[in-house]
Amino acid sequence: MDHEEEGSGLKMKAMDAEQLREQAHIMVDFIADYYKTIETFPVLSQVQPGYLGKLLPDSAPTYPESLQHVLNDVQEKILPGVTHWQSPNYFAYFPANSSIAGFLGEMLSAALNIVGFSWITSPAATELETIVLDWLAKALLLPHHFFSTGQGGGVIQGTASEAVLVVLLAARDKILRTVGRSALPKLVTYGSDQTHSSLQKACQIGGLDPELCRLLKTDSSTNFALSPDVLSEAISNDIANGLIPFFLCANVGTTSSTAVDPLPALAKVTRTNNIWFHVDAAYAGSACICPEYRHFIDGVEEADSFNMNAHKWFLTNFDCSLLWVKERSALIQSLSTNPEFLKNKASEGNMVIDYKDWQIPLGRRFRSLKLWMVLRLYGLEGLQTHIKNHIAMAAYFEELVVQDTRFKVVAPRTFSLVCFRLLPPPNSEDNGNKLNHDLLDLVNSTGSVFITHTALSGEYVLRFVVGAPLTEVRHVKAAWQILQEKATALLESL
Amino acid sequence: MDHEEEGSGLKMKAMDAEQLREQAHIMVDFIADYYKTIETFPVLSQVQPGYLGKLLPDSAPTYPESLQHVLNDVQEKILPGVTHWQSPNYFAYFPANSSIAGFLGEMLSAALNIVGFSWITSPAATELETIVLDWLAKALLLPHHFFSTGQGGGVIQGTASEAVLVVLLAARDKILRTVGRSALPKLVTYGSDQTHSSLQKACQIGGLDPELCRLLKTDSSTNFALSPDVLSEAISNDIANGLIPFFLCANVGTTSSTAVDPLPALAKVTRTNNIWFHVDAAYAGSACICPEYRHFIDGVEEADSFNMNAHKWFLTNFDCSLLWVKERSALIQSLSTNPEFLKNKASEGNMVIDYKDWQIPLGRRFRSLKLWMVLRLYGLEGLQTHIKNHIAMAAYFEELVVQDTRFKVVAPRTFSLVCFRLLPPPNSEDNGNKLNHDLLDLVNSTGSVFITHTALSGEYVLRFVVGAPLTEVRHVKAAWQILQEKATALLESL
Repeated sequence: MDHEEEGSGLKMKAMDAEQLREQAHIMVDFIADYYKTIETFPVLSQVQPGYLGKLLPDSAPTYPESLQHVLNDVQEKILPGVTHWQSPNYFAYFPANSSIAGFLGEMLSAALNIVGFSWITSPAATELETIVLDWLAKALLLPHHFFSTGQGGGVIQGTASEAVLVVLLAARDKILRTVGRSALPKLVTYGSDQTHSSLQKACQIGGLDPELCRLLKTDSSTNFALSPDVLSEAISNDIANGLIPFFLCANVGTTSSTAVDPLPALAKVTRTNNIWFHVDAAYAGSACICPEYRHFIDGVEEADSFNMNAHKWFLTNFDCSLLWVKERSALIQSLSTNPEFLKNKASEGNMVIDYKDWQIPLGRRFRSLKLWMVLRLYGLEGLQTHIKNHIAMAAYFEELVVQDTRFKVVAPRTFSLVCFRLLPPPNSEDNGNKLNHDLLDLVNSTGSVFITHTALSGEYVLRFVVGAPLTEVRHVKAAWQILQEKATALLESL
Repeated sequence: MDHEEEGSGLKMKAMDAEQLREQAHIMVDFIADYYKTIETFPVLSQVQPGYLGKLLPDSAPTYPESLQHVLNDVQEKILPGVTHWQSPNYFAYFPANSSIAGFLGEMLSAALNIVGFSWITSPAATELETIVLDWLAKALLLPHHFFSTGQGGGVIQGTASEAVLVVLLAARDKILRTVGRSALPKLVTYGSDQTHSSLQKACQIGGLDPELCRLLKTDSSTNFALSPDVLSEAISNDIANGLIPFFLCANVGTTSSTAVDPLPALAKVTRTNNIWFHVDAAYAGSACICPEYRHFIDGVEEADSFNMNAHKWFLTNFDCSLLWVKERSALIQSLSTNPEFLKNKASEGNMVIDYKDWQIPLGRRFRSLKLWMVLRLYGLEGLQTHIKNHIAMAAYFEELVVQDTRFKVVAPRTFSLVCFRLLPPPNSEDNGNKLNHDLLDLVNSTGSVFITHTALSGEYVLRFVVGAPLTEVRHVKAAWQILQEKATALLESL
């Protein structure tokens, strides 16, 4: 059959405008049909580990196969193993928005397939990135020093992990230029115990002592926000012990419960102690384009760097993590290289930005294109509506939970995440952790909904995030009904 | 007009199967038309720094705009600022192949838009990646320990920079577990002076002493390959000085001249000294699926890690960098995190791979999909033909250069790169560096062709790489004609 196809004249060229047109139209219909039927798939894939190895051959084919053959395999073999992040019944982790505009942007970027490490390798890629990050900085009312016209500027990273890593490296090298390289083992990093694990990983990568990544305790008394007093005390202790505090990662919207650290009060502490102040608003930053939520980043004018992921809740396909820095030279001093084979007039003349020096990899995709298309095809007003709509649905879900006395909302809902748990029956041996773990498994194994969990003060807690573009109130209602039914069944079985 | 459009009922939804279908078909035609007319654009963008800021507004729009409006802007404002990596007249840097199959894979991956950090977030993403990396390992005749069934396995990184970084970190932490963390400032990294700048950057990132990243001298006597004796001597000196050698990055196909380091002889040195042996075949690795070129990676069976970029010369759209490691536990020990919110049964039970622990970021795209589609839609035979065809065209170009006595080929052509220069006239004050710099500028400013340069033994050298999928012999001929014409004009003007 392979040989037959090869001889049929249908063989696909490496590149050809008309073949591309024909095959890509087929793919568009396949994708549109996927979205049309997306609710028929289990949201969380129900396959067992190793399922795919049993379905695919153990070698690459020698001869070409047809697109139809491959698409059949996608339908029959790949899609069952997909967890459908774009399903309207997806309420897990944080959202990863795909949108029509974002998808179109990805298409165009993949088609041009440029590698924009330096300005000259596609001036439009660099310049559009600078422009849309300035647009966003304006929409978020960020301080002037984060604009490209100041000493700083914005850049698209792949993920928030890379964003925190590059600013940690910039901060590390900046302080080491003052105190000397040999002080590396004395550098201390701070965050709350709610800070994303990427901070620890960044410390690990940067050669910092992992013991000196201080994740300061939070609890429900501050709604899991970092206390400036706790930070201040930790810093004083470290200084007294001859250590060198150099970096704080503050959160606006933590992963577990969307807690918001008090930026202005924390900024006072970092200013006094000459510490790099990074604000991680990976998820919640998107909400701050709405006037009524902008106050959550009040204090950002004191930050050295600020991050939000357009690929989470801003209708921009993964990956697209936006980072602004106050002082771009710190980033560039840490991350620049200048080999002969990349030298060119524009770069040598310091006339342009070369974003390769603002990130870990050398190569980079034309990611600004999709963000630009999202901004233009939806407009800021459309994006605000998208955000507000999700927050309203989360508020509605919260109400539903509150009305059922068997459940409890365990942290304030600030954006579109509700943290809640099923209460253990009186005199139960279980503190509720096993109960909620079991409830999560039961609910997710229906395939009708996907939610995830976290731990807050040692309690196993369920997380329900509204954020998928296709989610409507009816999906929220249906999800709650499943949760209630499974809770009833579980409590009865005890 | 914005308001009008808003009221016209054409407003794009965040997501909707039928709107997606309609708009994506429009985008397909736009993209196919781009490829149809790609030769009408200057290959190297001829815009001046800052050009785009003058064409775009300084704020994001409040209200949605139409796709047609945006596509007009792409045509009129963005495309002039694009350097057309997919043009058949692109002979610069190394290629970054887009192909029909790769593009279709990107479309599908963008449509599913999953974030595959852990197995459970889309089992198919993890398992397909493992499978296709095993397929490729087989096609490249890699040793058993690089297969997922051994102690190692393959993983897709964004770029070769990230590949060398993660293995450097794994090697760093492995040796530090033996000698103690305080030995960090004593660790020494080795490579030749032809090694890609990403090695130095990785050292910088990992907190290693930049002075101890030894880029050992090469010259034309070894065709710019690293001498095992030079390496051995450097290691002995460092050990004698109380330093700790721990990492070698060897090259198969350097960026400047596609030099090939002698892997078997280097492996002897690393084995004796217990040094992590990384092989960077970012560009040339693709050629090694052809039996006649496989010998260039002989010795890879001794390597601890091996890297090739499918996004360079393997018809797989950017980004897709393939990394194999001998001992996956070393990678995982350096890069794993395990926060509560990501815990799940499959991961806790060690039943699955979580690729988040094999890379820098947490999030990751479904990149194996495009590689799988490339392998299936072209077959290994089709991919071999693609490679051989380019190498034959480069050999033809080399012949053309040799036939014109005004030029000189300055390094052996091994794959599809020809390094050459225009010889300065006798009694010229210029050693040829200015002459070739001027020739490069003249040629690139025609817009008809794009080539880049490098330096070899202090000489400014022109690089001509055949690698774009659309390139045919007529494009190579035309490029050479432009080079000859401009050389004639330049020599006459002296």
